Amino acid sequence: MSERDCLFDYNELLDWASECLQTAGASGEVARHVAYYLLEGDLLGYSTHGLIRLLNNCQWLDRGESLPKGQPQVLQQRAAVANWDAQRLPGPYVVPMAINEAILMAKQAGTGTITVRRSQHIASLAAYLSLATEQGMMISLMCSTPGQRAVAPFGAKQAVYSPNPFAVGVPSSSDPILLDISLSMTAAGKVRQAKANQQKLPYKALVTEHGEWTDDPETFFSEPASAIAPLGGELLGYKGYGLTLFSELWTMALAQYGRSQGKDEGDANTVWIQVIDPSAFGEQKTFIAQVDELIRDTLSAEAIDANNPVRIPGHQALARKRQQMELGVRYAPATLKVLNKCAEFCQQPLPNAIR
Amino acid sequence: MSERDCLFDYNELLDWASECLQTAGASGEVARHVAYYLLEGDLLGYSTHGLIRLLNNCQWLDRGESLPKGQPQVLQQRAAVANWDAQRLPGPYVVPMAINEAILMAKQAGTGTITVRRSQHIASLAAYLSLATEQGMMISLMCSTPGQRAVAPFGAKQAVYSPNPFAVGVPSSSDPILLDISLSMTAAGKVRQAKANQQKLPYKALVTEHGEWTDDPETFFSEPASAIAPLGGELLGYKGYGLTLFSELWTMALAQYGRSQGKDEGDANTVWIQVIDPSAFGEQKTFIAQVDELIRDTLSAEAIDANNPVRIPGHQALARKRQQMELGVRYAPATLKVLNKCAEFCQQPLPNAIR
Repeated sequence: MSERDCLFDYNELLDWASECLQTAGASGEVARHVAYYLLEGDLLGYSTHGLIRLLNNCQWLDRGESLPKGQPQVLQQRAAVANWDAQRLPGPYVVPMAINEAILMAKQAGTGTITVRRSQHIASLAAYLSLATEQGMMISLMCSTPGQRAVAPFGAKQAVYSPNPFAVGVPSSSDPILLDISLSMTAAGKVRQAKANQQKLPYKALVTEHGEWTDDPETFFSEPASAIAPLGGELLGYKGYGLTLFSELWTMALAQYGRSQGKDEGDANTVWIQVIDPSAFGEQKTFIAQVDELIRDTLSAEAIDANNPVRIPGHQALARKRQQMELGVRYAPATLKVLNKCAEFCQQPLPNAIR
Repeated sequence: MSERDCLFDYNELLDWASECLQTAGASGEVARHVAYYLLEGDLLGYSTHGLIRLLNNCQWLDRGESLPKGQPQVLQQRAAVANWDAQRLPGPYVVPMAINEAILMAKQAGTGTITVRRSQHIASLAAYLSLATEQGMMISLMCSTPGQRAVAPFGAKQAVYSPNPFAVGVPSSSDPILLDISLSMTAAGKVRQAKANQQKLPYKALVTEHGEWTDDPETFFSEPASAIAPLGGELLGYKGYGLTLFSELWTMALAQYGRSQGKDEGDANTVWIQVIDPSAFGEQKTFIAQVDELIRDTLSAEAIDANNPVRIPGHQALARKRQQMELGVRYAPATLKVLNKCAEFCQQPLPNAIR
């Protein structure tokens, strides 16, 4: 087993991941989508939601917990909205399909909104945003996990909600703005990572059963477990709590698929997708000029630390993507271990590292 | 001048405020709307955005900085969206009109989205939410202030953005969920209030020109001024920064009316309004059951402090409203001083306190 980071050729990885998924039962089209969007997560630097999740995806397919092919069912539809049942099709297959449909709606009506229930785990939200921004569209994406309780309401010490991400994409005249954040103080994956590395969290993000704030990840896995606090923490957590309620309502309540329905569905997500066509509000070029002005204004603000200049969300991620496409996709030893497990599970040998 | 809180009869205040606005030049319809929604802010407890802003509204009318009557101009329209120019009509007149229009769109298309530029100050976002929730609709509201720079990007010590509020309303089978928060660590009004009361802020929400975090409100008014930090603070401020960018983009960029256009327009706002018809996604009663379940789940989470139980956003505000409608609307001496100034400015004597 490798003890250091290794680099892999993008196309070789893409083919390998796709082969793994097909071995596990996915159709060629489903496999290509899942491989592409997981890898996109790695390219952008969201390594907890990249190919490290390939093994899960293959296992779900193998155990019949993902639908290997097929179409989402349209439950309900109006001019600018739809509610889909993905029937556990993989998120990386069904989400791009929904975004493309929402883009068509937005071109007609100005906005297009689709909720998707029973999407198998959708991985990195950031990976999908450019589908909209490349067509000059604004997009917001949220998801929740009916089977997961990890985040407490403000003032509580028991988990009620999933650690829901919120993502937006906005085109500019150069790189788009791509934002992908969780609305809690940390994400469950980061707590797992800290535990695995036998480290403390960088700050007190958890509330124990005794109502104490802690940075100890072990408490999250004890019984009764600690809960992740909403963004804003001890003083301003009512804001992150409100934003978390917002994301739970705009996903599960609107899609009419919440914890009563999906409590046994593991990592499967309920998704909110909204595409906005800026050209429905005025000239597209005037909109782009507004975005450019906001970026310029932001970058002109003097940094607290001159060595750490202000950054636009997504721009570092896109630079990382370009670099990895050229020089190879980088994996840490812990991730390589999971990729090798997947290679073994699917009987598809991992490509050789290029460096 | 009164040295204690006083209570006033709701209807007497409403008539008085409306008379003041008409004296300052507003049409009867404009005056009734502004009076009603400012007072609604007080009823719900948003006292920095209640009748304390009546004097400003009268002065703007008097100086020709508000349009006393008329209609917003529809700049652009598609089935589910529109972009309006309010031409400085008062926010409390034009925002309900836009919400009602967005409700009609949502009934047809599933969602209705309206951006409004050059709305004179819209006061409390919370005051408008029930227009949508009372019709079974979900609503999101945001606004920004092209003439104001008070919030810094993450990692910066210079203000670029306005302290933008984010509000949502969702119907349930009993009281709706009503959320209205700013996306920064504090609001400019709270810094002004702390300075006026010669108090420190409750936490370090400001970054000085030297890049130091401070709770001293005086720094916000010095030259160069300190800036309000985005929600999340020193460690997690990249999240509040991303949310602030989101609100700036979804208001000013989309409405195509930003700081270049509106930098000299004082408190006037650029507004985002989106109404969602849940019945476009499935049965309304199933949606309401999902909201009720989330409220029940939330309230069942054990509190850190048993004397401070978990609360649903908006429920305390609605209880306060019911109480004030019955027993009288309460004003603190500092607010009464401003109301008396307004009475003098408009030559309309303030009603007598009932207690």
